[in-house]
Formats: sequence, C-alpha cells, structure tokens
Amino acid sequence: MQYEEQAYTDLGWAKIDTGRPARTGAAEAVYAAGKTPEQVVGVLRTLREAHPGRVAIATRCDDACTEQVQAAFGDEAHCEAGVCAVGDFPDPENGPVAVVCAGTSDLPVATEAELVARANGLDTRLIADVGVAGLHRLLDRVGALREAACVIVVAGMDGALPSVVAGLVSAPVIAVPTSVGYGAAFGGIAPLLTMLNSCSPGVTVVNIDNGFGAAMAAARIMGVKAQR
Amino acid sequence: MQYEEQAYTDLGWAKIDTGRPARTGAAEAVYAAGKTPEQVVGVLRTLREAHPGRVAIATRCDDACTEQVQAAFGDEAHCEAGVCAVGDFPDPENGPVAVVCAGTSDLPVATEAELVARANGLDTRLIADVGVAGLHRLLDRVGALREAACVIVVAGMDGALPSVVAGLVSAPVIAVPTSVGYGAAFGGIAPLLTMLNSCSPGVTVVNIDNGFGAAMAAARIMGVKAQR
Amino acid sequence: MQYEEQAYTDLGWAKIDTGRPARTGAAEAVYAAGKTPEQVVGVLRTLREAHPGRVAIATRCDDACTEQVQAAFGDEAHCEAGVCAVGDFPDPENGPVAVVCAGTSDLPVATEAELVARANGLDTRLIADVGVAGLHRLLDRVGALREAACVIVVAGMDGALPSVVAGLVSAPVIAVPTSVGYGAAFGGIAPLLTMLNSCSPGVTVVNIDNGFGAAMAAARIMGVKAQR
Amino acid sequence: MQYEEQAYTDLGWAKIDTGRPARTGAAEAVYAAGKTPEQVVGVLRTLREAHPGRVAIATRCDDACTEQVQAAFGDEAHCEAGVCAVGDFPDPENGPVAVVCAGTSDLPVATEAELVARANGLDTRLIADVGVAGLHRLLDRVGALREAACVIVVAGMDGALPSVVAGLVSAPVIAVPTSVGYGAAFGGIAPLLTMLNSCSPGVTVVNIDNGFGAAMAAARIMGVKAQR
Amino acid sequence: MQYEEQAYTDLGWAKIDTGRPARTGAAEAVYAAGKTPEQVVGVLRTLREAHPGRVAIATRCDDACTEQVQAAFGDEAHCEAGVCAVGDFPDPENGPVAVVCAGTSDLPVATEAELVARANGLDTRLIADVGVAGLHRLLDRVGALREAACVIVVAGMDGALPSVVAGLVSAPVIAVPTSVGYGAAFGGIAPLLTMLNSCSPGVTVVNIDNGFGAAMAAARIMGVKAQR
Amino acid sequence: MQYEEQAYTDLGWAKIDTGRPARTGAAEAVYAAGKTPEQVVGVLRTLREAHPGRVAIATRCDDACTEQVQAAFGDEAHCEAGVCAVGDFPDPENGPVAVVCAGTSDLPVATEAELVARANGLDTRLIADVGVAGLHRLLDRVGALREAACVIVVAGMDGALPSVVAGLVSAPVIAVPTSVGYGAAFGGIAPLLTMLNSCSPGVTVVNIDNGFGAAMAAARIMGVKAQR
Amino acid sequence: MQYEEQAYTDLGWAKIDTGRPARTGAAEAVYAAGKTPEQVVGVLRTLREAHPGRVAIATRCDDACTEQVQAAFGDEAHCEAGVCAVGDFPDPENGPVAVVCAGTSDLPVATEAELVARANGLDTRLIADVGVAGLHRLLDRVGALREAACVIVVAGMDGALPSVVAGLVSAPVIAVPTSVGYGAAFGGIAPLLTMLNSCSPGVTVVNIDNGFGAAMAAARIMGVKAQR
Amino acid sequence: MQYEEQAYTDLGWAKIDTGRPARTGAAEAVYAAGKTPEQVVGVLRTLREAHPGRVAIATRCDDACTEQVQAAFGDEAHCEAGVCAVGDFPDPENGPVAVVCAGTSDLPVATEAELVARANGLDTRLIADVGVAGLHRLLDRVGALREAACVIVVAGMDGALPSVVAGLVSAPVIAVPTSVGYGAAFGGIAPLLTMLNSCSPGVTVVNIDNGFGAAMAAARIMGVKAQR
Repeated sequence: MQYEEQAYTDLGWAKIDTGRPARTGAAEAVYAAGKTPEQVVGVLRTLREAHPGRVAIATRCDDACTEQVQAAFGDEAHCEAGVCAVGDFPDPENGPVAVVCAGTSDLPVATEAELVARANGLDTRLIADVGVAGLHRLLDRVGALREAACVIVVAGMDGALPSVVAGLVSAPVIAVPTSVGYGAAFGGIAPLLTMLNSCSPGVTVVNIDNGFGAAMAAARIMGVKAQR
Repeated sequence: MQYEEQAYTDLGWAKIDTGRPARTGAAEAVYAAGKTPEQVVGVLRTLREAHPGRVAIATRCDDACTEQVQAAFGDEAHCEAGVCAVGDFPDPENGPVAVVCAGTSDLPVATEAELVARANGLDTRLIADVGVAGLHRLLDRVGALREAACVIVVAGMDGALPSVVAGLVSAPVIAVPTSVGYGAAFGGIAPLLTMLNSCSPGVTVVNIDNGFGAAMAAARIMGVKAQR
Repeated sequence: MQYEEQAYTDLGWAKIDTGRPARTGAAEAVYAAGKTPEQVVGVLRTLREAHPGRVAIATRCDDACTEQVQAAFGDEAHCEAGVCAVGDFPDPENGPVAVVCAGTSDLPVATEAELVARANGLDTRLIADVGVAGLHRLLDRVGALREAACVIVVAGMDGALPSVVAGLVSAPVIAVPTSVGYGAAFGGIAPLLTMLNSCSPGVTVVNIDNGFGAAMAAARIMGVKAQR
Repeated sequence: MQYEEQAYTDLGWAKIDTGRPARTGAAEAVYAAGKTPEQVVGVLRTLREAHPGRVAIATRCDDACTEQVQAAFGDEAHCEAGVCAVGDFPDPENGPVAVVCAGTSDLPVATEAELVARANGLDTRLIADVGVAGLHRLLDRVGALREAACVIVVAGMDGALPSVVAGLVSAPVIAVPTSVGYGAAFGGIAPLLTMLNSCSPGVTVVNIDNGFGAAMAAARIMGVKAQR
Repeated sequence: MQYEEQAYTDLGWAKIDTGRPARTGAAEAVYAAGKTPEQVVGVLRTLREAHPGRVAIATRCDDACTEQVQAAFGDEAHCEAGVCAVGDFPDPENGPVAVVCAGTSDLPVATEAELVARANGLDTRLIADVGVAGLHRLLDRVGALREAACVIVVAGMDGALPSVVAGLVSAPVIAVPTSVGYGAAFGGIAPLLTMLNSCSPGVTVVNIDNGFGAAMAAARIMGVKAQR
Repeated sequence: MQYEEQAYTDLGWAKIDTGRPARTGAAEAVYAAGKTPEQVVGVLRTLREAHPGRVAIATRCDDACTEQVQAAFGDEAHCEAGVCAVGDFPDPENGPVAVVCAGTSDLPVATEAELVARANGLDTRLIADVGVAGLHRLLDRVGALREAACVIVVAGMDGALPSVVAGLVSAPVIAVPTSVGYGAAFGGIAPLLTMLNSCSPGVTVVNIDNGFGAAMAAARIMGVKAQR
Repeated sequence: MQYEEQAYTDLGWAKIDTGRPARTGAAEAVYAAGKTPEQVVGVLRTLREAHPGRVAIATRCDDACTEQVQAAFGDEAHCEAGVCAVGDFPDPENGPVAVVCAGTSDLPVATEAELVARANGLDTRLIADVGVAGLHRLLDRVGALREAACVIVVAGMDGALPSVVAGLVSAPVIAVPTSVGYGAAFGGIAPLLTMLNSCSPGVTVVNIDNGFGAAMAAARIMGVKAQR
Repeated sequence: MQYEEQAYTDLGWAKIDTGRPARTGAAEAVYAAGKTPEQVVGVLRTLREAHPGRVAIATRCDDACTEQVQAAFGDEAHCEAGVCAVGDFPDPENGPVAVVCAGTSDLPVATEAELVARANGLDTRLIADVGVAGLHRLLDRVGALREAACVIVVAGMDGALPSVVAGLVSAPVIAVPTSVGYGAAFGGIAPLLTMLNSCSPGVTVVNIDNGFGAAMAAARIMGVKAQR
C-alpha cells in the first residue's frame, strides 16, 4: 500500500486516519457520543487541516457539542439533526439519491442522511411522508423514484416501506430503520427485522437511526472517489 | 349464569367445556400437540356427543394423530394442514371473509384459517400470493377485498402485507404472522413485530402461525351466535 | 379507485392522507411523538379543514404539545392521557364497546381507548379494576360484559384478564397489553406474550399501551356490524 | 457442621452428595440428560446404597435410559414422564398437595411433579384441565383447592391459571410454566413471564417444565409445616 | 363461596377487594406505580376502614407518594424503601424468616421484604452481605440459617447465593433477583435466570426486585391466616 | 406504469410477478422452503416461459426439491448450495464482484451468492478463507479487492471481516452474516449485530445466510454503475 | 513482521495460516462444523506437514468426520468429545491447569478442554462434579485448586461455580458456560450471564460449550508464566 | 484454611471480606452503585484499616460519591472515570499490560482498567484509537503489543478489535465490550457477542464496560500475590 493510504495523525488520545480518503473515498467522521466537545472539535480541526478540500463531519452531537463546534468553526459549520458538517459543500456531482421517509417523525434521520450525502458530493431529493397506509402518496412519486440512481428509505414502526419501494425500482435500495414507535417497536428492532426480511430481493440494511451510514453506503455506490 | 353455560364433561384427565358454545358462541377445540392420538379422538368424540350439530375441531395434529382421527370418524373427518374438522360443515351464513396471503409458502396457515372459518359457518374467499414486492397483484384485488366483511391477512418474512391491506379497506383486519422465513425472521418474530407496529390503525394480531385463532376472531366478529 | 380515496394534501414535510376516510372509514391520526408541536398543530388543522365534520386526533402528545393544541383549538380540543381530539364528538351510534381494565394503573391506556372510540362515534362503558386476583369483581360484571358488542381488555403485569373475559363472552375481544409492571414485565412484553398465547380462542392483540389501536379496531368491527 | 452433612461418595467422574438428606431433607437426584445410561444407573445405585430407606430419583430420562434403569432395578423402579423413582414409596405423611394443570397437554409435567412429591412422602391430588377459558371447571374445585396445604399449578400458553388460583386460596402457590404452545409461547417463556408477573401476591415460580423442582419446593414447604 | 370472600368496595375507578383476607389470608396491597398519590391514599384509606386490625400496604411509592401517605396517616405510616405500611404492626407470631442478601446494594429489596413480612406478622432476621465471593461469611451463619423456618435470599449480579443457601438448609428458599449490576446483568435478567436454573432442588423464584412478593410467599408458607 | 410492469401470471395458488424485470431489473425468484417440489417446478416453468432469455432461480431447495428440478429441466438446471438456476447463464457483463469469505464453513453461503450473481450477468471472484485471525491472508489480496466494483463479504462467528475490508476499499461492501458458529453465535445473530454496528462507514447488511439477497443487491448496484 | 509469521498455505478453498504458531504460540485449529470430512482431513494434513512437531486439532467433529480422521491418521489420531487431535502429545511442560466441572453432564466440555490443553503441552487435573449444591465436595479440593497455576471452571444451569472458585484462589479463572440444562437455561445463556456478572473479580468467560477456547486461553496464560 | 483467609469485619449492614487478599491476591473492592456515599466511604475506611499497605478501590462512583470520597481521604484518593482508588500506588512490579482501545469514546473504560491495574501493581501501556477501520494504526503498534505480557482490548460497536489483536500476539487477550454505540449495539450486546465468538482462539471476555474486571483478571494472570 502507498504511503498516503497508511497515513494518520497521532494526537495521543486519538489517531486520526488521514489515509482513509485514499483508501475508501471518504474522510473519517467523528462519532461524537462519548467524546467531550473539546475532543470533537479537536478531531474536526485535524481533519480540516489534513483535507482542506473536504467537509469534516461529526455525528451524534448533543447540544453542548454542537454549540462548541459552531463557536469553533463559525459559518463553516452546518449543523442539523445532530450532524455537524464543517467546510464548503461540494457541488453535487452524482445522483440523484432519493431519500424517502415513511412518516414525519422519521425526518431527523432522513435529514442526517441528506446532510452527509450532500457533504460527500451527492445530489439528494427528499420524498417525505409516503408511508404504506396511504399507498397513493407513494405511487404518485414512482416517476421521481425511478429517476434516482440510489434510494435511501427511512422508516420506523412496521418498517414496511422499503419492501414496497424495492418492488417498484431497479436502483439499489438502502433501508434505514428508525427508533420511531413504542412498545413492541423495541427502539427500532421491529423495523430492523422487517427490513432484513424484506420480500423484495436486494434490499440492504444499516443500523437503527443510522442515516449517516446509509449516506456513506450511497457514496460508495455512487462511486464518489476521493479528490486525492 | 345459566346451567348450560357452566356445563362440562369430566373425563378425569380432561374436563370438556361443553358450556362454551352457550358462553362464547363456539365449541371448545382440541389442541392436539402434546396429547396422544387417543386423547384427541376421545375429546373429539365427547364434543360430537355434546353438540351433534356442530363441527368438532382439533388443531396441530401430526400425521399419526390425523390418521387415527380419520380412522375413528371416517367421512365425517375433514383433515388438512394439521386441522381435523369432524362433522358436517354448516352452510356459510356469514361473510365473506377474505383470507389473503403474501406468498405461496404461507398457504398452510391460510388453509388452517379457511377450514376453521368454514367449520364455524363463515363464507371464505382466498386471495393468495399478493405480497408487496409486486403491489399490482394486490391492487387488482381491491374490489374483492372491499367486498369482504372481515379480512384475515397471512404473511411471513417482512410481514408488510397487513399494513398495506388495512390502508385500503374499512373492514376489520386480523393479521397472522407466519414462521415462513429464515435467519432474522426468528421463526415468525419479525412479521409478528411488524404487524404489532402497523402504521395502519386498527390492525389486530394473533400468534405466529395461528390461522385457527384468526378464524375464531373472525367468527366472533361476524357474530356467529351459537345454535344453542 | 375513485378520486377521493386517493386524495392527499401535500405540506412538503407531510402528506396528509385526506382520502383515508373514504377508504378505511376513519381519518388519519397524528402520531405526535417525534414531531414538533407546530407540526402536530399543522396536521390537525389540515385534517380539520379537509373533514370539518370529523374529530381530528393526535396521540402520544407530551405536555408541551398538548398545550399548543389547546392554545390553537381552544374548546374544540379535548385532551386526556396524551390524546388530543379536536372537534365536536359525534353522538354515539354504535355499541356499546366495553373497555375493561385489570388495575387502576392501566387507566391511562383505557382512557386513550375510550376517548378515541367516542371520537369515532362509539358508545363506551368502562369496567375498571377487575383483575383476576379477585375474580368476583369481574363475575359481578358478566351481565354488562355480555351486553357489549365488542370488548377491549387492558391489562399489564401478567396480562391474564383477556383470557378470562374471552371465556365468558361471544363478542370480539381486543387485548391491549400495558407497560404497567416492573422487572420481568419488560415494559409490557410479559402481558403481550400472555395475550398472544391466550387459551381462549379468538382473542386478538394490539401493541403495548396502544389504546388508540384497540379503539380503531373496534371502530372497524362496529362498522361491519352496523352494515349488517 | 456434622460429619454426615458433609459426606459424599467419590466415584471419580461423580461425587454423590450423600450428606444432602441431613442438610436439606431430601436426597440428591440425578439429572439424566447429558449422562450415559450407565452413569445414571451408577449414581442411582450409589444413592440406594447410601440411603436404603429413601427413593432414589432420576429426572429427564430418555427411553434408553429408562430401559436400563428398569433392567437394573426391576420392580423397584417406577418410571413415568421421564422420571425414574427407585425404591418403595413412603406412606404419604404430609399434605395434601394439589397438583393443578391448565390443559391435558400439561399432564406430563404434572405427572413429574406428582411422582417426585409422592417419592418424598407427600400426599397429592391431581386437578386436571381447569384452564381459565372455562372458569367454572376451576370454581367447581375451590373446595378441593382450599383443602390443600400447598398448591402446584402447571400451565403453558398464557400461563394465567396460577394468578387465578392464588386469588382463591391462602396456601402457598408454586407455579410451573410448561413448554406447551407454539409461536410466541417461545418454548415456555410466555407462561414463565406471566407467572413471574402474577397480579396475585405470593406466587413463586420454578423453571419451565420443572415439575421436579416444584415438588421439591413443596417438600421443603411441607417439612416446615410438619414441624410446627 | 361465602359472602365476605366475595366482598369488594367499588370506588368507580377502583374496586378494592375487601374479601381477599378471607380468601388468601392477606389484604390487597396497592401497587403505587402508575397511580396518583391521591389514588394511593384513597385505596389505603378504604383498606384501613375495611380491615382496621390489619396493616395496609402500598409498594413502589415514589417520594411524592410517600409524602402524601405520611401526611394523610401520620405516625401510623411506616415508609421505607418505597413501601408504605399503614397501621400498627402485629406482634411477630411466626418465624423466624431469614432475609439473606448477597451485597449491600441489595439492601433496599431486602428491606422491602422485611417490612412487608413484619406487617404480616412474621418475625424476620436480616443476614446481610454474605455473597459467595467470600463463602466463610455465609458459612459463619449456617446456624442462624438453619433456625429459620423460611429463607428469602436476595441477590443481584450473578445471583449465585440461593443455590448455595439451598444446599445448606431444609427450609423453603425463596429467591429474589435484583436489578443490581450493569451490562450483561440486563436489569436483573442474569440473576433471574441463575435462580430459575438453580442446581439446588426446591428453590422458587419471584420477579426481579420483588421483595414484596417474596414476603407474601413467606406469609403463605408460614400459614399466617387472616384474623377475620 | 406501463402494462408489462404490472403483468403477472395467475396460477390460483400463486401469482407470478412477470412484470418484475421491467420494474426492478431482475426476475422473481422462488423461495422454495415451505413449497412442494411440484410448486417450485411450476413457478420455475412459468418464469422460463415468461422470460425465455433469463435464468429462473429457486433458493432454499432441499434435496427432494433439487432432484425434481433437475428431473424437470435436465441440463438447463444448475444446482448448488440449495440454489437451482435454470437456463443459460449470460456472459458476465458487469463486475468484477468480489465474494470474500472468512472461513471454509462459510463457503455454501458464498456459493449461493456467486451462483445468483452469475445468473444475473455479474462476473464474480471468490476470495476464500481470509478471516481476521490471520490478517496477512487478506492483506495479500488487497489488490484483488480494490479491483472489484462491489464486494460481498460473508462471515459467521464474530463477523469482523466486513469492517476490516470496508476500511481497505472504496467500493460498496455488502455484508452477509452466516449461521456458522455455536453457543453465543445464536444462529447468526452475533455476526449480524457486528455488521450492523461496523465501525467502517458505509457497510450494508442483509439477512443471515442470505447470499441470494447480497447478490441481488450487487445486481442493483452494478446496474447503476453500468448506466453511468 | 517476519516471513514465517505471515506464511500461509493456499488450498484455494482454504488458506491455512501456517504462520500462526510464530505469531500466537499455537497452531491454527480446524472448526469442523460446516466442513466436509474431506475438507477437515485436508486441513489437518496441511497442518501436520507445516508443523510436524505439533499436534493438529479439529473441533466440533461429528461421527462421520471423526471416522474419516481416524481412517486417515490411524494411531496418530486421538479423538474424544468431538475433538480430534492428530500427532504425538508433548510432555506436559506447564501447569498444572485445573479443569473443574460442576456436574457429570458437563464432562464432555471439560474433556474438550483437557484434550486441547494437553495437546498444547499443559499438565491438567480434572476435578469433577463439585457443584455448589454440596459445597463440601469443593471445599475438600481447595488444596488441589490452589496448586493450580490456572483454573478452568465448566458449569451449566445456574453457572454459579466460577464465582465460588474465584473467591478461593488467586490463579486466573476461566469460566466456561455449558448448554447443560433446559427451559430457562436457554441453551447456555443462563450460565453465560451468571459468569459475565460474577461477583468475584477477575473471572473471564468464553463462549458456551467452548472448552477449546478455554484451553487456548490457558495456553496463552501459561506461556506468559513460563517466560517469567 | 488458615484464619486470615477467613477473616472479615462485620459492620452489620456489610461484612468486609478482609481475608480476600490472602485467598485471592487482591483486596475486596466496593461496588458503589446502589450504595450511599456514606456506605462507600465506610467500606473504604474499613479496607484501609485492614490493609494499610494496599490501595482500596471503589468502582461505579457517581459525582456525589466521588466528592465524599475525596473529602474523606484527601490526597490519598485518586478518582477518575468513576473509580476511586485510595492509598499510595505501588511501584509497578509486573507487566507491561497493554490496554488497547478501538475508539476515543472507549477511553473511560480503558481508564478504569488502567487505574485498577496500576493500583494492583501492574505497569500499563495505553494504545488508544486503533480500531480496525484503519488497520495500519494498529499494525504500527505490533511491536508494542508483542512486548506486553498481557493485553486488554476495549471496544464497542462491532467489537472486532480483539479478534485482530489476538491473531497478532501470543500473550493472553482479555476483551472488554463497551456500551459505545447505538441502535443495534444494544448497550454493548453487539460487541459482547462478537468477542465471545472470536475466530481467534484464546480470547476471554468480561462484562460490558467492565474495565475493573479486566484489570483484576490481568492481576491474576500476572501473578500479583498479596503482600500479606
């Protein structure tokens, strides 16, 4: 392997994998949960320095973390739905990626997916609130769905939407279960299992509420190669 | 409570609840699993004697049990999909009840539901293999679905079908998860959770593979009162 | 399908399924959890405009949400147990529906069921605190139970009540497990499993704490009966 | 502790705890599952030699094991429902202990409990097939139940019976969940949870299908009573 | 059944089972979780009026509830570890009941058991902090353990203590798993399973943290008959 | 939607979705578990007639089913690892798709993936037995991995391989957990959870042992790439 | 890393990690489940050729596999409890390692541990059937336990033994849960959780029934000790 | 056993096992959760008095507890990551023990392990943030890893790191799953299962977030004998 693929910056308490874009096409992101705001800002700063042309991303930021990121990076910081994306967003080169969600309560996860996708140069289209209890809302959007090169489907509760969408399109379908629901939804286990058992062949699944991961998978699929 | 409501026949090892029709509208059924074929035949015989005008039902019969029931009751025994229904089926008085299933592998559970429903005087209509991966198959049947006074929906794997059906009809929808599937289907847990979390209001659920229970619920709903 | 069945109002972030009453007999309800109070009020307003003669319902409202709904709709808003029902309640046309609960701690879920049922035109009767540890309390109400056209049974902990009730009546029995209990109640899993495995044939089950769903199922059932 | 309390016989591959009667009032029993028939016979023989006046017990014997025990001990061996009890049964000194079961399919577990209880000198009374779907069968036996000094209640599926029984008697109630059922019964988890969450105070629970353990608990309880 | 066994006081929102002492030997207790403080005080007052000679008990009281109970009943209220016991404690007639706990963190559950036991006329002895990691602490108490007519063993984490205790005594052993622990203790599931699978025959188990239930089982065992 | 997208062939007990290729790019496959061999052959025949130029696929075939498929279709049938693919395989147009597996015991699932992928026109490369316990085996294949346009990673037990692979390549990574393992592998739950929680961003997951689904996802992904 | 650490033999369908001894001190073992007997023999042969002085090990061999291994290697093959160890056992250099088991039914897992340990040059001592229901059997062996440099404790059901042992010795304690038990033992989950939550500090745990893994951990530990 | 091995100090509500160092090589530690700060200080004081030359340890201290410990012991108290270690740390006699963690969010658990290890006389080396998504960071540390006599590996999410580390070193590997992650990480179940199913032989596992237990196991392994 070449040098840049194996590079990292050692902060002692963290080793920032600066070689990741060369290897995987996308920069390392910061998982903010369990880190202090100072640690999050520190890693973001290291990432910005290593890759000035890329957007540095932190996920699962709470309010205190978000405030410190905004204080540290000012206008460069775009923060929404627990994501902080620092840097100028690239022009959308690839897509469109449809981000479809079943209900309004699923919107924060869809927003996480959209923000991360756009930070990685993808063009996104939101199709909101098209749950299967009122199928015509979805069927009205079949045209838009079929224009998408990749479809991210976000749903909680019964998690039935990805099966229906995947039966209508030929593009890759990435299903994101959400923790929306109560009781036997078990914090997202119900839609997770639904999606893993989809009767529509070719649906793939990411972790519960993992809009970030769905966007990163879409980026891999769309072939966003690093601007090394 | 009146006498006949509280009647039972004591066989020592079993107490046949002969008062059940008077109380609940339907005769006691035999759960054959864990019983010897002799015990199953014994209870069926007691039920036939107590209620000559009713069909006596045993569920979860294995092959040995089915054979002994057929040997004991001859042409009176109608056995399919693990159900043995003994006696002349009544003319269908109520319905129609639509029995909808998602895939061909779900047919045995649907058959259990149909047989028990018909033994209780319900008129049934089977709508098979209309899973959500090919929605148009279901949408082609909306007319038939809307004619049904009650809809039983049988599905394994993702269990998404009841949510879609319940968004299209105003009749009661009884969802039956099946053990069809593998891996993260967990023997029917996946569709069970899907159905309990349906985004379509008013779906009710019975146990995994419980076609019998769905039919009995339909019988309660259709108001099949006992011919006491 | 006819036009009105496929209608919806597109708010961008939400697509209100205004065709739902034509298809399923009941208007869309708002699941307030995970939505901002503004979003909840917005959807309720759209529903009120689309169906002035119907009661618009939001479930799972927290205090902040309830306050904004009350501020927005004034006397039209009837809020209790996390439900906000906006509009004039119809005269009870159908019923009675018995809402039975095992313990006093189950009352909030029973209240959710009653409020939603009445908003859908059902006549309800509450039979509270008749858990099986003191059977005579329930047996004293057998007369009232048998007058009911449909019975909703709400219970936490051991969830044993629906099995007992279903052995006494011929009406449909909808069981609602609650999260009342601790330890091995596992937030309602214990009574949920109890109810799914009821030894009384024909019990159907809804999600944990889902009084709303039970009422909607009762509305579907009573609609059927009304037509016959 | 005294010598006899700490005695054991060392077979190398097994150390038979011959001091157990002196400490706990009952001899060690053999858990036959996972042991060869020869090992089971060997331990039973050691127990018979150490305590000639006691019945030696093996549980969970399969057919091959049962045959070898019968071959080894002849008429001394009483084998039923997977239990082999070797030796003369004592006259029943204590009791009566009621063994109540919900359905006929629960009988093998009830038989295990009865056989072990009688081998330990308890007088037992079987009350079979009194599940809560037909309450009058149980209410007809309230007199017999109240005569019992201790009640063992065996039930699968919804496991509701112990809650009802414990509301009718003042004696100790030991609940035994069984693996009778299918689907969401999860091999006995459903009735186990039901019983652990009983709304009737003072119900205690043993492992799924553990008729042996219930009988041993009854023996401890009846020993206490005998002393007072 | 006689009249007093079937008596209850109907408050509308609650039906106080005043016949319970006549049937089961102990008065109904109030499960305070999910009830308002006013409801709890109301039920306690009804119980006090129905049975002036008995201690009325509420469990799972939070601070607000405890304060209102103390305000309502003054010196009559004995409140500790979430239990409020109202009335004069009877002289201990029966026992001793040993309440054994594995660690200091299990003390609140042990206290719940002790308070409820004493309110029911049992004499209790606390043996604290004798977990199996230092066996000699327990072995030093074998004498005291063997004097007990009934033993309640309270343990979290590995829940190993009841198996060891039951191998040393002939009295009934009631095991109480606690939610003490973290990670794979899963809120008490770990010790619950340990206890259900005890290798010492005759251990019975109650719900996680259910000191109340263990005391009520001890009361049944000790034969505390109602002072009707 | 156009006619051919909505076409299906109604066999009564099955409705073959012949419009699926037009909508999703791939023909319906037969899930053979729970179907009779006659049903499987029947659906395969219908698919062959509807799409003579396509390979018809049945998955989860047992031996009896495989034999009947081979008898019915002769040389046209290619059967391996439970998959029966009937028809001439297309020339590989797209790829390469790397199918990587952690251990030799995972090979059947990898074979399922390869066969289905090739039946859908993908060029596949197997990289077997490169589990993380001996990293150098994998690192020796980095070149081959990076040449792949899409990577399917099959692993049981700890399921660690996809995380490592995804850190080395920029292509899409589809993770397939297998049921290889015992004890706390829980039939594939362990690697399923590992993969859903991958620390390498952009890994997507399919059901346990679902080599078929992974291949179908790869086909969707490679279809996308082909169009650009 | 040096060459020999990175060596492997590529059989196409398998890549034998011949560098493993140089890296980890022990040769690769064959997990036979899911492999054909031919594959198992093939890997064993490769291992024997690469490391003639080492014992080659296959675990989880069924009868057919065992027979073929014995046929292939003759007297070199030592097969017991599902393990096939091929080659001359080294003289025991390190130890002693005590292998302690709670009951006779746990012996097969203890045997797997002993055989693998001895194949890796460890001296083992079996202490069988010392479960905590009869503590004196264990306390009689404290001397032998304290002579051990490392202790492997094998237990099913309640899994309580490792906690007790670890409170008596200062050596490392490796706990092996077994699948011995039924009902709520859940195939070994109960003792697994017990052991993970041990109240005795410093207990470590391996997978259910994983005698092999425990022995390999002991080998790592004894290697450490030998070097100092 | 000798006297000092069986010594304890009885505080009534606690029995401090002062004989533990003589038996197990390490003093009893205080599990602070569920104890009052006063209780924690009390036990620490007793431990300090019994073993003046040892560091007394409390784990799982919340802020209030930590403050009181610091107030009570002043400079003697070293508190970090929920651990309070009171007394002068011994010179590191044994090691080095490598504490490796996958991500920065795992640092608190690693800190718990380091602090406890050092309090027990072990020399520790932290290797932070070497998760498998960027393997080169870990491979850069192979030299340091191989110098370690024992390796503790701390990881959340996919928990893949211990398998990789154990394939590179011959020292004992103790794996610590953490609760870092969300959704299907299930509070640490995901990495716990990963580690229990490690494909690298000889990995042992402790409870989720149990840095303390890992350090105590390391102390056993390193042979830290008590300075009695």
